Amino acid sequence: MTNPESPGVTGPNAVLVLGLGQIGGSVLQAASAIVPAVGWSPSQETRGLATDAGYTVHNELVDALEWAASVDALVVLGAPHTEYDGLLRKITRHAPRVLLTDVGSVKQAVAQQVQTITPEARYIGGHPMAGGTESGWAAARPDLFQDRIWVSCLERNSQLPAWETIAGLWLRMGARVVPTTAREHDRAVARVSHLPHLMALALAQVGQLGGPLAWSLAAGSFESGTRVAATRPELIRAMCEVNREALIDAFDDALGIMGVARGSLASTGSLIKATDGGHSARKAYEARDSALTEVTMTNPTSGELTDFGDDGGIITGLARTGKKLTVTGTRR
Amino acid sequence: MTNPESPGVTGPNAVLVLGLGQIGGSVLQAASAIVPAVGWSPSQETRGLATDAGYTVHNELVDALEWAASVDALVVLGAPHTEYDGLLRKITRHAPRVLLTDVGSVKQAVAQQVQTITPEARYIGGHPMAGGTESGWAAARPDLFQDRIWVSCLERNSQLPAWETIAGLWLRMGARVVPTTAREHDRAVARVSHLPHLMALALAQVGQLGGPLAWSLAAGSFESGTRVAATRPELIRAMCEVNREALIDAFDDALGIMGVARGSLASTGSLIKATDGGHSARKAYEARDSALTEVTMTNPTSGELTDFGDDGGIITGLARTGKKLTVTGTRR
Repeated sequence: MTNPESPGVTGPNAVLVLGLGQIGGSVLQAASAIVPAVGWSPSQETRGLATDAGYTVHNELVDALEWAASVDALVVLGAPHTEYDGLLRKITRHAPRVLLTDVGSVKQAVAQQVQTITPEARYIGGHPMAGGTESGWAAARPDLFQDRIWVSCLERNSQLPAWETIAGLWLRMGARVVPTTAREHDRAVARVSHLPHLMALALAQVGQLGGPLAWSLAAGSFESGTRVAATRPELIRAMCEVNREALIDAFDDALGIMGVARGSLASTGSLIKATDGGHSARKAYEARDSALTEVTMTNPTSGELTDFGDDGGIITGLARTGKKLTVTGTRR
Repeated sequence: MTNPESPGVTGPNAVLVLGLGQIGGSVLQAASAIVPAVGWSPSQETRGLATDAGYTVHNELVDALEWAASVDALVVLGAPHTEYDGLLRKITRHAPRVLLTDVGSVKQAVAQQVQTITPEARYIGGHPMAGGTESGWAAARPDLFQDRIWVSCLERNSQLPAWETIAGLWLRMGARVVPTTAREHDRAVARVSHLPHLMALALAQVGQLGGPLAWSLAAGSFESGTRVAATRPELIRAMCEVNREALIDAFDDALGIMGVARGSLASTGSLIKATDGGHSARKAYEARDSALTEVTMTNPTSGELTDFGDDGGIITGLARTGKKLTVTGTRR
């Protein structure tokens, strides 16, 4: 299928989204504007809401998968990670060689699971950095991925065609694509997503230990510092517990930095190291997009793409002309 | 002076604000609409900006203090805490028995300082829970305190007239007043303001250790979790280092909660205690104003007022008729 906005970019023929929560539902809504797209949810209520909103929904998972196999649709695992095992077994039975991705927030564990259960699927792990503390179909919207980052995983020896097809779809949904390995992805999100949730949860508890007066005095810093503690606990557990090794490393860095600050406060009374180090880190984060260089790569290898992503590169366009794939993006 | 909106409420005759940053400048702007108000800043540039904006500004600190003594103005310490020592010495010399408050974020240390340097001043410690990561006169605005909490400190044996006069002014500026002791204030803000800043700074550093890829993947939870790390480091140090004892307690609670979560993840793989406990704490915080009871107190003692504040009570009105002081507010 040809992208009308970027002639020469290939994408999937069709899309099947399994699970229609905030992310899965948004994928169905965004994909429907680009290719034939079908959704499925185990919840009759959700299927009804999606149908009422004008989207195409299958009632039976087997029917949906047989349709996906027949048209070579991209199958998107949009359900919680706890459902992957059952879904992958169904895929092995009814659409074993399908183009497959997921939107979960950990990538190594899923890659292993797919390799074990669905080894013939053309799988590329994915993770859109979008969505908030709300959940369910009611929180889905077609522009959820506009200008957001979408990680599309590659390993050194990956075959590129499946990646190109899938990453091309995310770009057409308005996202920007970061290519990296499952391992590097998991290490990064442990620091910038999983640990922030656990620190927000800890801070909320420290506040509560202060009694009613603490609630009266809580202002901006407590509000923003605990914001994501409102996320449903089972969603936080689902993403954090699976990323155990990388998250323990991030925990140890945080406990070390906070322990040094606590010790310095108790001994010398000074917090200069904590304040200066943390402030300059936040300023570096704020300035991360302030001096970008445009980059063009022709027929990059998967290793060149993951190096690009690991070095802070972000892909904004993919275009194919015959055997030539042109990748455009920005580098810091 | 009588409040035209609430007849019978006494307030100060006039106000002198020393230091015209975001908080001090906003106090000058808000007070100018209510009583004769004068500002002073050590910075000629700031004095010029305030004068250009139509506010009354003294060039000389001594002139300003002599004016304050002559009209029995409320003197507001709006400068950084590091400047208090020098300002208090000037006050002792030129306006020793003045009505005095401050807007700093720690209260026990200032109370001791005032007791030592300016023992004759009628001092009531204050702390408006307002202001953001910006600073300076440019960030000041007259409605900064609208609907915000303003702590106005009392000790068990405090005399109430000075407190009534000062708290009355904050109410007329649109704030809501929480009466508590300096000690309880310091313990609460350690948890809901000082520790949140230090955790934001630590989280920013943990993110930076993830390299350029981490910056690409940082989304909502990292953004909100590190927001206040953008605050000027010297302001964070100024408030945190002075509140050492209470902040160490808060640190130890946070390190304990995070350490248990880390240990549980490493041993059992489960984060259920961290997620459930933190989530219910955040939900309790979000619901803190959802079921308020209206309260009226007549001629309360300072002990009754601080008990009220420590129990989550918030004062929304003060009215005096002869010897009768009526305090209205809300309790959770």
